[in-house]
Amino acid sequence: QSSVTLYGVLDIGFGKVKDGKWGMNNGEGYAGTQDGFNSTSVIGFRGTEDLGGGLKANFNLQSGGLDLSTGGTSVAFSREAWVGLEGAGWGAIQLGRSSSIGAKVMGAYDFNGTSYSSAYDRAGISAVTWYGSSRRSSQLQYTSPNFGGVVVRAGFTAKGDEGGVQGIGVPDASKNRYSLGATFANGPLSVSAIAETKSAEGLRTAYAVGVSYDLSVVKLAATYNRRERDGDLTRNYNTFSAGGAAGSGGQLAGGKGWTLAAVAPFGPANVGVAYARNTEADIQALELFANYALSKRTRLYIDFAKGYDQNAITAVNANGRGLASANPYAVGVGVVHTF
Amino acid sequence: QSSVTLYGVLDIGFGKVKDGKWGMNNGEGYAGTQDGFNSTSVIGFRGTEDLGGGLKANFNLQSGGLDLSTGGTSVAFSREAWVGLEGAGWGAIQLGRSSSIGAKVMGAYDFNGTSYSSAYDRAGISAVTWYGSSRRSSQLQYTSPNFGGVVVRAGFTAKGDEGGVQGIGVPDASKNRYSLGATFANGPLSVSAIAETKSAEGLRTAYAVGVSYDLSVVKLAATYNRRERDGDLTRNYNTFSAGGAAGSGGQLAGGKGWTLAAVAPFGPANVGVAYARNTEADIQALELFANYALSKRTRLYIDFAKGYDQNAITAVNANGRGLASANPYAVGVGVVHTF
Amino acid sequence: QSSVTLYGVLDIGFGKVKDGKWGMNNGEGYAGTQDGFNSTSVIGFRGTEDLGGGLKANFNLQSGGLDLSTGGTSVAFSREAWVGLEGAGWGAIQLGRSSSIGAKVMGAYDFNGTSYSSAYDRAGISAVTWYGSSRRSSQLQYTSPNFGGVVVRAGFTAKGDEGGVQGIGVPDASKNRYSLGATFANGPLSVSAIAETKSAEGLRTAYAVGVSYDLSVVKLAATYNRRERDGDLTRNYNTFSAGGAAGSGGQLAGGKGWTLAAVAPFGPANVGVAYARNTEADIQALELFANYALSKRTRLYIDFAKGYDQNAITAVNANGRGLASANPYAVGVGVVHTF
Repeated sequence: QSSVTLYGVLDIGFGKVKDGKWGMNNGEGYAGTQDGFNSTSVIGFRGTEDLGGGLKANFNLQSGGLDLSTGGTSVAFSREAWVGLEGAGWGAIQLGRSSSIGAKVMGAYDFNGTSYSSAYDRAGISAVTWYGSSRRSSQLQYTSPNFGGVVVRAGFTAKGDEGGVQGIGVPDASKNRYSLGATFANGPLSVSAIAETKSAEGLRTAYAVGVSYDLSVVKLAATYNRRERDGDLTRNYNTFSAGGAAGSGGQLAGGKGWTLAAVAPFGPANVGVAYARNTEADIQALELFANYALSKRTRLYIDFAKGYDQNAITAVNANGRGLASANPYAVGVGVVHTF
Repeated sequence: QSSVTLYGVLDIGFGKVKDGKWGMNNGEGYAGTQDGFNSTSVIGFRGTEDLGGGLKANFNLQSGGLDLSTGGTSVAFSREAWVGLEGAGWGAIQLGRSSSIGAKVMGAYDFNGTSYSSAYDRAGISAVTWYGSSRRSSQLQYTSPNFGGVVVRAGFTAKGDEGGVQGIGVPDASKNRYSLGATFANGPLSVSAIAETKSAEGLRTAYAVGVSYDLSVVKLAATYNRRERDGDLTRNYNTFSAGGAAGSGGQLAGGKGWTLAAVAPFGPANVGVAYARNTEADIQALELFANYALSKRTRLYIDFAKGYDQNAITAVNANGRGLASANPYAVGVGVVHTF
Repeated sequence: QSSVTLYGVLDIGFGKVKDGKWGMNNGEGYAGTQDGFNSTSVIGFRGTEDLGGGLKANFNLQSGGLDLSTGGTSVAFSREAWVGLEGAGWGAIQLGRSSSIGAKVMGAYDFNGTSYSSAYDRAGISAVTWYGSSRRSSQLQYTSPNFGGVVVRAGFTAKGDEGGVQGIGVPDASKNRYSLGATFANGPLSVSAIAETKSAEGLRTAYAVGVSYDLSVVKLAATYNRRERDGDLTRNYNTFSAGGAAGSGGQLAGGKGWTLAAVAPFGPANVGVAYARNTEADIQALELFANYALSKRTRLYIDFAKGYDQNAITAVNANGRGLASANPYAVGVGVVHTF
């Protein structure tokens, strides 16, 4: 009677940060909610209805991060909350809250699944977390069909949703926001580009390009990224001093820079490395990871992330996010189960 | 193994109010949570168990309104939360929180699905929102079998649930509350009546009557309604001045008055109009709407609501609800997907 | 595609306490949330994946208590939130939050399902609520296979999870915490023992032993229990005076003592009695109960609990929990539906 699928991702690990003790999901490094060491634990509901004539209606509701170590997280569909229409010939649109176009286009070049140990993010130059979040509220998104390997994605958020209440009292500095991205993928090669316009005066258009090539024994990737803000050190990832907003952390870091990554498969396992350099803010980050798949739905992981010349993650603020410490690191081992 | 059904209603639209900007679910007009422009977005779980001998146990858990534009709503089963028993011969009872008897008996005469644009509600004379809510907590409800077109509904809430904590410290002014309603529906004709007693000294018994007749090319309805309160202008729907309780809004409006409505089907579409006049508070409201069904579960809508001689909806209070503005309106277009 | 099961327990009853009025779930006696008179109303999701070779991955997410009388409870998976691995030969481990080993090993001797009327708990000597909760966060649990009727359970929580944030700032007094329990069950006889080490300096190791024997016409049980704290009267179950922590109530009671219980089946019904005496804190509690099963999933109940020489439950604090009153009681009748 109902075509709804319940799905989820559950991550629980043992971890630690440089000057901390081992514990469950300790050292996740990010938010107050310890919702996984590698991945964000979530549940969700999604469904599709066939409207005939190649047209489909679909929806997705995905919770925010769930903390399995304490269980103390209220369920709100803060990651995906949208309704969409999809046509065989013209692609798909969706209305509501969803992953940003930046996350959808550039996520594939972060080989450890844009994990909490992501070197890109720890150096403040991940296109996934532009503007402080991997999500966009009140967005109209369009995804094209696959044209010979090319998929185009676009997003639009109206100025009336960029502040104020119900479109009243919207700040004068607010602007309509546009995103445009494309990926060409053919055989071993993947190339992508993405840009997102400023949402308010004082910011700049963010853009990124990425490329990956699969040599079978190893897959390589490189990206270049310019964020929406200058590389103001007071807003950098793990700083949280003067300008750092508690709770949103380094996802508000500015700057620009480049990344390199490699991942090698070994049967059901893989091993990888990623390096990111924020040239404007002078931050470097290194990530080492390995995964072992017990099945298609369950894997074990070990992650290590380290920052250099960086104010970082061994002390925490009131939200459990990292404060200053020289050359910090976080290490963890755990299990991710999806359903 | 489990007979549970997951269901939901998801509404996302673009809308605006008189002096505001267009945005997702902007102009919903009501609560702080922008949980739909036309309908309230919810998810729920319901189930039935056959106990044998014609007896069934059933339950329903339905979330409060979910805001798809931002995703930021914690899930609580604040609309339906009850367990019930149902017998072939004697009807059904349910225990817990549910829609009020007023909403169940009179909702059918509000042809746009008691939407957020409801003229009845905007004029403060909808039986759906008596006592400030379409829901009742701690209620025992009874629904009779259908006797030749007649269905009787009754509700009871104990004085011990009308204040205090766990039945201790209940105010002396609290009273047991009773609701009684009935609908006769036969062919094109439907007639209903409903009354709900006061829950505390100082209020009055609320009552309403309604009739609808389906002429096939058009369906007509009229209702008359007396609320639990006098038509004190300071408590009117969109006023929120002196006496208006923030967050509960015009659902606390008083007064009495009448409504007229018409809806005409055009294949998978319909077009309708509703008018409501609160004679005691001197408020009028007009509603125009159209729906186009893409399928049984997905429809597009356009809604327009306007108030006359009314302090209304273009400015908002801290909860995003309307403050004073002359002859306000709200207009929106969107999609409702059910599953 | 998904092997997830949605399950739940829904309890709604009419109840009252000594000086209070009858109402829905009034007199539950415990927490601010009136989430059932007999049982805690919850929903949950659980699933199992076959990994091959006798290995399984599984998970469980179970909400905190849901208040059906008002519906006003946000859903958070605060009772069960874990991922586990299970092997045919070696048993099962799980990582995250779950019921304590004490609850799992000793719950079976509380014949009314460790209900809110539990005499054991009302006297402050239930192994289910040691350390103020029937749950443990950040715990690694192990359950052995059944060896000729013997099942062993063990739990471990790292010091790094016993305070501080992400393992930083852990108090010096914190300790690794260990639990060890075992049950031997064979035919009519069941014998169990359980101990849990102190989590911080100043506490003591808690332990309990229990035995039950099923004579067919009646089943009998006896337990002995020493809590983690002295029997300080200011922390007793319903006291909430000087040392009582609001919200955690008598589950922080100290002391030691013994319990006796009997339950007799009558076809689909049962009738039972339990008595508990906290010898260190000088509290006694009596519980009378009866259940009638309409089916395997739905039952009616009547519960009565009374304390003697006890400061108790007729007045309530800000969280709706009992304050002082001599020889208090609570009585209720209701329905529990599981799915």
